[in-house]
This record gives sequence, structure tokens and C-alpha cells, in this order.
Amino acid sequence: MPYGNTRHEVLIAVFQVRRFPDASGVLREEPELGVLLWQRALDPQVGTWSLPGGQLRNDEDLTTSARRQLAEKVDVRKVAHLEQLSVFSDPDRVPGPRTIASTYLGLIPLTSDPQLPSDTAWHPVSDLPAMSFDHGVMVANAHARLAAKLSYTNIAFGLAPAEFSMSTLRDIYCAALGYEVDATNLQRVLARRNVLTRTGNTAPSGKAGGRPPALYRFTDSRLRVTDEFAALRPPV
Amino acid sequence: MPYGNTRHEVLIAVFQVRRFPDASGVLREEPELGVLLWQRALDPQVGTWSLPGGQLRNDEDLTTSARRQLAEKVDVRKVAHLEQLSVFSDPDRVPGPRTIASTYLGLIPLTSDPQLPSDTAWHPVSDLPAMSFDHGVMVANAHARLAAKLSYTNIAFGLAPAEFSMSTLRDIYCAALGYEVDATNLQRVLARRNVLTRTGNTAPSGKAGGRPPALYRFTDSRLRVTDEFAALRPPV
Repeated sequence: MPYGNTRHEVLIAVFQVRRFPDASGVLREEPELGVLLWQRALDPQVGTWSLPGGQLRNDEDLTTSARRQLAEKVDVRKVAHLEQLSVFSDPDRVPGPRTIASTYLGLIPLTSDPQLPSDTAWHPVSDLPAMSFDHGVMVANAHARLAAKLSYTNIAFGLAPAEFSMSTLRDIYCAALGYEVDATNLQRVLARRNVLTRTGNTAPSGKAGGRPPALYRFTDSRLRVTDEFAALRPPV
Repeated sequence: MPYGNTRHEVLIAVFQVRRFPDASGVLREEPELGVLLWQRALDPQVGTWSLPGGQLRNDEDLTTSARRQLAEKVDVRKVAHLEQLSVFSDPDRVPGPRTIASTYLGLIPLTSDPQLPSDTAWHPVSDLPAMSFDHGVMVANAHARLAAKLSYTNIAFGLAPAEFSMSTLRDIYCAALGYEVDATNLQRVLARRNVLTRTGNTAPSGKAGGRPPALYRFTDSRLRVTDEFAALRPPV
């Protein structure tokens, strides 16, 4: 029979910029982009690491399912941004009955620290453990989408705390992109596009002393394209 | 039982910029964005118009399925660009067994004229007929995605002929966006982003005579983001 029913699962790549320990267990100074994974206690592929998620219920749509599974399985209730990514539909992507996977990107702010079950942990995206099935490709795709959107949208609101200095925001961009970004350029670009608003507050001075840095917030906390061609904007 | 198997279908919003007849049957001068639809001959919702597509086969992934269905059902083999859009997963989106729909955006160049079966026709996106189920929302979503991507990617390559004058390209942008775009601004923006290449050829002079217009082509025929922040580019 050429057409059959399939299972449908939802898998979420939840990213957070956070500090990870080095080989001797000391937290590194520079934060890195982390992804939330859980370790399989049973076969198939016992011991490999998987994205959180699971089967779609009969009474829910995909986005409802993604939120439910994050809340139930990893106690992540404070996702600042959640968006659908691509569907993985290779007929042989997992053993057993055919299962189509809809993937999501989830972002958690720097300052949030969700309680995790004992089988679940944050891993640096740059140094993933042995991943289950096609979950490694899913993480790479989600990371690529995040990096692309950092350049033409305000998506960093999902990774930033409510208020932040430009140097904190620079650290977030560097971690999410995986390369150095200049804080002055970043501020100039984001200001020109009206992405940031000054809160009027300042942070405590750093160790070096000096003028206390100004604090900012994202003007919007919903995704928008910040970067339309002036020539292509609709007439006002 | 909370978890069940589902059917999975693929539906494609195929867009082309083309000229449509006015009320008296005469082709309008200005081209418009059209979408390819077929009319249901049977219930449910007999007489309404649907996006081309159908059920996923056991042996194919979603993109293979989208290409197969376009080739089989509407004889569209020359899709210049095909990309996955969102998944429609409301449990009650269609009557009968639960069916999840993965939607695609497909683009056909201005000059292409695929043979269509008798139940299939192009409709202006601005004036859709009575649509089946949630297919009207799918067309609106696909159009919104196309319009957004026109502003930060080279996606217009999928709608343009191999060689074109700037005035033809302007007509394509106007039709796809639904508002006027200035040809001089458009050329300046696309030149700055290295989206276009001059072919060295010229078009025949228009009715008004004058200098024959230069012809261009898209530098790339694969989607790319043309518009990364300079400040956020990776170091070379």
C-alpha cells in the first residue's frame, strides 16, 4: 500500500546562552550557546542524547504540543520565543513505525534557570555528545536558522534578559553566532533599526570602575524583520 | 487513546506573476501575482478551490512528494524555487481522519507556461475564489512569506525570466508585493547587494523608442540572504 498512516512527533531545539565548565570543572568566562538534551535510558540508541519532545496528541496542534512537552518533560515554561522549523520526513529516519518529526526552535533568556530532570542537561552546541538518530542535524539546522535571523530580525530578544548592557548583548551575539562581534558596530546597527530602547537605568560599574554602562531592552518582544529594503517598503 | 496515527498531506502554493483578463475578458496591462488552484469535483466542499498536492507516500519524503505531485497532477515540472513553509495541524482542519498538512511555496518564472488539466487554473492572489478548508489561509501565509523574503533575499530569481530589463523586474516586484516599487531604487538596492549581473545584452526598444534597455540576470539561482548586517558578518 503506497499511502499509510504515520506517527507524528514534535522535537524542540531549546537554546540558551550560558556559561559551561572547562575540563577542570571551572566555569569559563565567555558564555556559549547551549542546547537542552536528554539521554536515552533505553534502546534504540541507548545512551545517545535526544532533543526534548514526543508524540503529537490527537487533541492538540503542533505548537500546543511543543509547549506541553517542554513544560511536562523538562519543566521549561518560560520560552521567550518558539517557532516552527522544518519537518524531517525521511521514511527511514527512525527504526520502527514511520514517524514524521516537526522541529521547533525555542529560546530561553540568559538569566532564566529552569529546573531540569536528572536525565536532562545543557550541552554546548559547539561540542555535542553522541546524538540520537537525526537529532544532530536538527540542532545544526536550528542553529543555522538562529544565526541567520540574528542578522535580519530582532530574534535576540529571546536570548537576552529583560535589561542588559551592550557588552552583555555583545556576548550573547558572539555566543549565538560563534564569532567575535564588535559592541560599537552592533549598537550602531541595532539603533539604526530601532531594535533597542534605553531603559534609563545603568548597571553597576564593572571591576575596572569607570562610568556605569547604560541599560537597554528590546523594543519588541515579538519577532519582526528589522531590515526591509527602504525601496521595497509599502507606501505609508 | 490520546496518541494516534495520522495522515500526512503535502500542499503547494505555486505562484507566478502573469497577466489576468479583466471583466470583459481582455488581458490587463499590469501583471499580477497568481496562484495555481484546482476545483473540487466531489464533496467535501464540492466546487471550492484547492491547492495542488495530496497524500505523502510511504517511500518518499515531503520535498520528493511535493515535486512528484506537481509533476503528476498539474504538469508543473519547472519549479524554479521550492521551499517548505509551515505545517497545518489543527485536529479538525479537514473532515474525516486527522490529516496534517505540510505546505510548500513554489515559484514559476514569468515566461513559463505549464500545461494545466481542465480542473486547474491560475487565480489572482488578490481575488481568490471560494477556497477549500484552510487553503485560503495557506495562500495568505505563503504570500506573506514571499513578500518578506523579497526584502532580505534574492528570492525573486524564482519569478523572473532568465534575462530581464529593470522595468520587467520592477513589474514582478510590484505584482508580488502588491504595491508600487520604484525601478531606480530597486536597481540601486539590488546592485549594492550584488543580486543582479548585467548580461551585456539589450532588449528591443519599447514603443516609445529611445535607448534599448540593458538586460540583467540574477547572479545566483539559489536562495541566499542578501542582507546580513555588515557588523555581524563572520571574519574572512
